[in-house]
Amino acid sequence: MRYLITFSYDGSQFYGYQKQHNQRTVQEEIEKVLSKINNSNVSISASGRTDAKVHALNQTAHFDFNKKIETKKILLAMNSLLPEDIHVKNIKKVKNNFHARYDVLKKEYEYKMNIGQYDPFKRNYEYQYNKKIDIEKMKSVIKIFEGEHNFKSFTKTTTEEKDYIRTIYNTTITIRKNIVTIKFIGNGFLRYMVRNMVGSLIAVGENKLTENDIKKILEKQNRTAPYRTAHPEGLYLKKVYYK
Amino acid sequence: MRYLITFSYDGSQFYGYQKQHNQRTVQEEIEKVLSKINNSNVSISASGRTDAKVHALNQTAHFDFNKKIETKKILLAMNSLLPEDIHVKNIKKVKNNFHARYDVLKKEYEYKMNIGQYDPFKRNYEYQYNKKIDIEKMKSVIKIFEGEHNFKSFTKTTTEEKDYIRTIYNTTITIRKNIVTIKFIGNGFLRYMVRNMVGSLIAVGENKLTENDIKKILEKQNRTAPYRTAHPEGLYLKKVYYK
Repeated sequence: MRYLITFSYDGSQFYGYQKQHNQRTVQEEIEKVLSKINNSNVSISASGRTDAKVHALNQTAHFDFNKKIETKKILLAMNSLLPEDIHVKNIKKVKNNFHARYDVLKKEYEYKMNIGQYDPFKRNYEYQYNKKIDIEKMKSVIKIFEGEHNFKSFTKTTTEEKDYIRTIYNTTITIRKNIVTIKFIGNGFLRYMVRNMVGSLIAVGENKLTENDIKKILEKQNRTAPYRTAHPEGLYLKKVYYK
Repeated sequence: MRYLITFSYDGSQFYGYQKQHNQRTVQEEIEKVLSKINNSNVSISASGRTDAKVHALNQTAHFDFNKKIETKKILLAMNSLLPEDIHVKNIKKVKNNFHARYDVLKKEYEYKMNIGQYDPFKRNYEYQYNKKIDIEKMKSVIKIFEGEHNFKSFTKTTTEEKDYIRTIYNTTITIRKNIVTIKFIGNGFLRYMVRNMVGSLIAVGENKLTENDIKKILEKQNRTAPYRTAHPEGLYLKKVYYK
């Protein structure tokens, strides 16, 4: 019996999604609870990992139970057993060949940056930026990332992947009450890719990099570029789309 | 030299505002920082205390420095030295006889209650309520609290005060996207008073208490009433008014 869950988590107290020895992770918390409900070990497969302190509004994962349990019952049991910073929003039965990662069609990420007064209530939920920044310039340069590109220059230096080609379908930058929201929709994202694109855009907004510099960095396919990886607390996995 | 600061804090990691032995408190964090800036011990007097896990959007406090320092400099120094969950929003010089507590004209408190789906990002910032509740009934009954009353039935059982008379000028209950916001403006509030009024209103919304029961509890002037003190995480000190 295969099930697909949609869940949110406040990443601030986690060492990321993926299970790691002696660290508090989202995967481990969920697997513990599911193993209890199923009365034997359960592993889950998510749409992808998120790094330490990164949040998810609608992460997805599938898992198998050895017996059929009503979805509503699983949902209630999970939410009563899970820690307060994870919440399962939805569950459904899926076909046995469904895969939460391989069947992903599109993913949506959002990055939140506060360019106004510091708000202590948002210290784990927005990146606080206190200098002058040219948002209009960022709005025009972000369009460079749209389309199919080799994003090797925008992944983690030490990450080895079979293939660095990804397609970004849509990007937007909006600003409301001093909160800048940078959105990316694509068929997939490499490790650190969103935070690296955001970091390079911030360098553009600071007049440290030009549109042409970003184009060259992208073409170079090499992760030794003059920008910083944006802080994790501003990043949200917003939605995972399937066929 | 007397100064008045307006500051916000996320109460979730504090054992309340007021200094206590071996506990992390807002007062102690601020006094440590001010004593460092002033190069000798500084005590602060706030508009009033807030309990453990209760938040403040605009708390106020005054303090004295033995030499004059530019307000802008104090503000910058405080915010760079304070922990991330306290933020000073404003500072001004005041007369030497100004008192942040005795000169209060009005105070505004807000209580936030989520009656929709649980949101892990709000676990420390809203009270989560999962049962059925009659908000319209609460809206009509809250008006009983307006005016001058003896609020002994709505303070902490063990609190001894000279006088339990307070005036509530205005109350409102609004609901937006499943968040119920209960607001009180008054000339002062006893310990636990807002959370006890909210707790009794929740009992009204649950049909456990009637409008008449609340009237009787108020008249009784005795804190052994059949309602619960509402959870602290939903409460915000929103504003302090001076002449």
